[in-house]
Amino acid sequence: VSVANQMEIFKRGLVDFIGEDELVKKLKSGKKLNVKLGLDPTSPDLHLGHTVILQKLKQFQDAGHQVILIVGDFTAKVGDPSGRNETRPVLTDKEIKQNAKTYADQVFKILDKKKTKLVFNSSWLGKLDAVDMIRLASQYTVARMLERDDFKKRFAANKAISIHEFLYPLLQGRDSVEINADVELGGTDQLFNLLVGRELQGDAGQDRQSVLTMPLLIGTDGEKKMSKSYGNAIGISESPKEQFGKIMSSSDEMMWTYYELLSDKTLVEIKKMKAEVSDGSLHPKKVKENLGKEIVARFHGENDADKACEEFNAVFSAGMNPEEMQVLQANPKTPLYKIIVDNNVLKSGGEFRRLLTQGAVKLDDVKIADANMLLHPGTYVLKVGKKIFLKVEIS
Amino acid sequence: VSVANQMEIFKRGLVDFIGEDELVKKLKSGKKLNVKLGLDPTSPDLHLGHTVILQKLKQFQDAGHQVILIVGDFTAKVGDPSGRNETRPVLTDKEIKQNAKTYADQVFKILDKKKTKLVFNSSWLGKLDAVDMIRLASQYTVARMLERDDFKKRFAANKAISIHEFLYPLLQGRDSVEINADVELGGTDQLFNLLVGRELQGDAGQDRQSVLTMPLLIGTDGEKKMSKSYGNAIGISESPKEQFGKIMSSSDEMMWTYYELLSDKTLVEIKKMKAEVSDGSLHPKKVKENLGKEIVARFHGENDADKACEEFNAVFSAGMNPEEMQVLQANPKTPLYKIIVDNNVLKSGGEFRRLLTQGAVKLDDVKIADANMLLHPGTYVLKVGKKIFLKVEIS
Repeated sequence: VSVANQMEIFKRGLVDFIGEDELVKKLKSGKKLNVKLGLDPTSPDLHLGHTVILQKLKQFQDAGHQVILIVGDFTAKVGDPSGRNETRPVLTDKEIKQNAKTYADQVFKILDKKKTKLVFNSSWLGKLDAVDMIRLASQYTVARMLERDDFKKRFAANKAISIHEFLYPLLQGRDSVEINADVELGGTDQLFNLLVGRELQGDAGQDRQSVLTMPLLIGTDGEKKMSKSYGNAIGISESPKEQFGKIMSSSDEMMWTYYELLSDKTLVEIKKMKAEVSDGSLHPKKVKENLGKEIVARFHGENDADKACEEFNAVFSAGMNPEEMQVLQANPKTPLYKIIVDNNVLKSGGEFRRLLTQGAVKLDDVKIADANMLLHPGTYVLKVGKKIFLKVEIS
Repeated sequence: VSVANQMEIFKRGLVDFIGEDELVKKLKSGKKLNVKLGLDPTSPDLHLGHTVILQKLKQFQDAGHQVILIVGDFTAKVGDPSGRNETRPVLTDKEIKQNAKTYADQVFKILDKKKTKLVFNSSWLGKLDAVDMIRLASQYTVARMLERDDFKKRFAANKAISIHEFLYPLLQGRDSVEINADVELGGTDQLFNLLVGRELQGDAGQDRQSVLTMPLLIGTDGEKKMSKSYGNAIGISESPKEQFGKIMSSSDEMMWTYYELLSDKTLVEIKKMKAEVSDGSLHPKKVKENLGKEIVARFHGENDADKACEEFNAVFSAGMNPEEMQVLQANPKTPLYKIIVDNNVLKSGGEFRRLLTQGAVKLDDVKIADANMLLHPGTYVLKVGKKIFLKVEIS
């Protein structure tokens, strides 16, 4: 792949790109780049937001460069000794290993395991002594550290910043020196930390890494950054049905953002689709379906992707937005007719039995006949007669 | 010694006294206190300014408490890795040992060597690893560290503060935890650092040390803090003559400050002297002489003190302030008559010889007769005739 082509691919979707000229120079020299991504082993559940960066890594990997994933187990073992930061719990070696494995299992749905180095930063940070820490701390000033956005805001608001919090960006930067990184990737919120690594490399007499940041993916609500805690995330480990449904429920505008940041489609292909949607030759629902199938296929395979699409359409074709259905909640010991009657969907069990015998009741698009049917835990779409669509949640 | 008496002695001359109630409680319980002073092994030349605190330590020692001197060799070995702070050079083990010995030799002119513990903080700080440093750093916030006066000023003036500078007060505080200090002494400029130690002890579940600060002694110029670099210091290792002369040249006002902070006289005795000077029954020069003799005797013995006083008076009684004498500089190979003529003190060697034969020339109060006399390196007072007083510096 030519340097120009590589650069075009690498630049797609970036927010910040520091050290572009240096990167071009290295590519022209034919150097195999060390491309770094730091992983936080405290929260191992990945969602599509995380995969934005993983896709970018994959582009470097596909172009023949060396991807190095650094599990930040050193700081995870230390945690936040001041106890102020709940997102920095102290983890045991066992928990870290478990989380790292969970993480890796998900990551290698995108990256090629054989071509990826996975390393733990405790293997070098754990060897630092007090003098090393003092020397490291001497490489940065208080004023410059306070330029980091969250520090600046907390400082201005008189919210406590413990001094050790100033050490963590330096340790992360030290990782770059250790692996001689040529490129480090991260979300836009990581820009400051990545630049610290760039500087520490310069101090150490190394070529400074180029820094590439990717946008923080917006969640399915179209408003907030994707996060499990906001309930707007699409998890890598969620079922095909959930993933597909969530993508279909996102706005058309979000769909284009997701295409750019998540899809393997080229920018030219995306541009063409946009044009076709614009002139009415392509229906936006079809475009969204393709995106949903691409994403689901990535994590579950093409068969499951096709099935999720068909199931979704069984509901959708009846004119119902699945997100707007009434939800019935029950436990696995409650017979189906009782769920219907208790929720006032129909007036009596008799009425439900009559519809059953007419073949007018479908569970997940399959006709059913038994009024006393018990359902396993899970989420089902129940169609009663021609107009009533219900989401049944058994737990 | 009763608790009340001890407290009266300990409080003499203090600027800050934090934790007074806690100290009284410990004294009442009969506890032998651990009394800490940190020594900086980078500048081993002590002057009277340093002895203000050493005298205070001696009061604790005389009352039966345990004085612990901590040589700050750990940080001296690290120095200032950012290279910004010239007063923090990196010292070798050999230099530190040499400095510590020089320091100790001077300190034990005041303290009883047998009753004093001298320890090096590298013996515990050198064992800290990176995780320990992170934990230590987590015990204090950035905002509180910036309350330290010099940090505050530098931060406000946009002058660089390296992050490792925030670690040094914490390491010093850690020393207090290590030796379980009950009292820490320091100059007023050390108040912040001493309070950090107090807090770290609290965090570690120890009783917190009481913090006693002493004023920074003003130099012989009566204006600036005593410091070798301001040329207003009286060094512990200076000659009896120099020490005595400098004390005699200080103002009457400074004399009383020196009495309070340096002398072993009780406050009652000092008050009595003041009254006697006030009502004219005691001449201030006599009071100053007594102070000079006390100080010189402390470092050189009573004989040398008496001699320094006599020599000084030989000059002084002739109505000359020795500080105002003309200074003649020469080398050991220049005959005395030549020094006189070259400096235009007299018009000719013949005039000088005539005065010599008349017995009208005294060198350090001793009549001399040889015009070709050669002087060894040193400083001499030369009296020529009845009115001419000269300081001759041979080097």
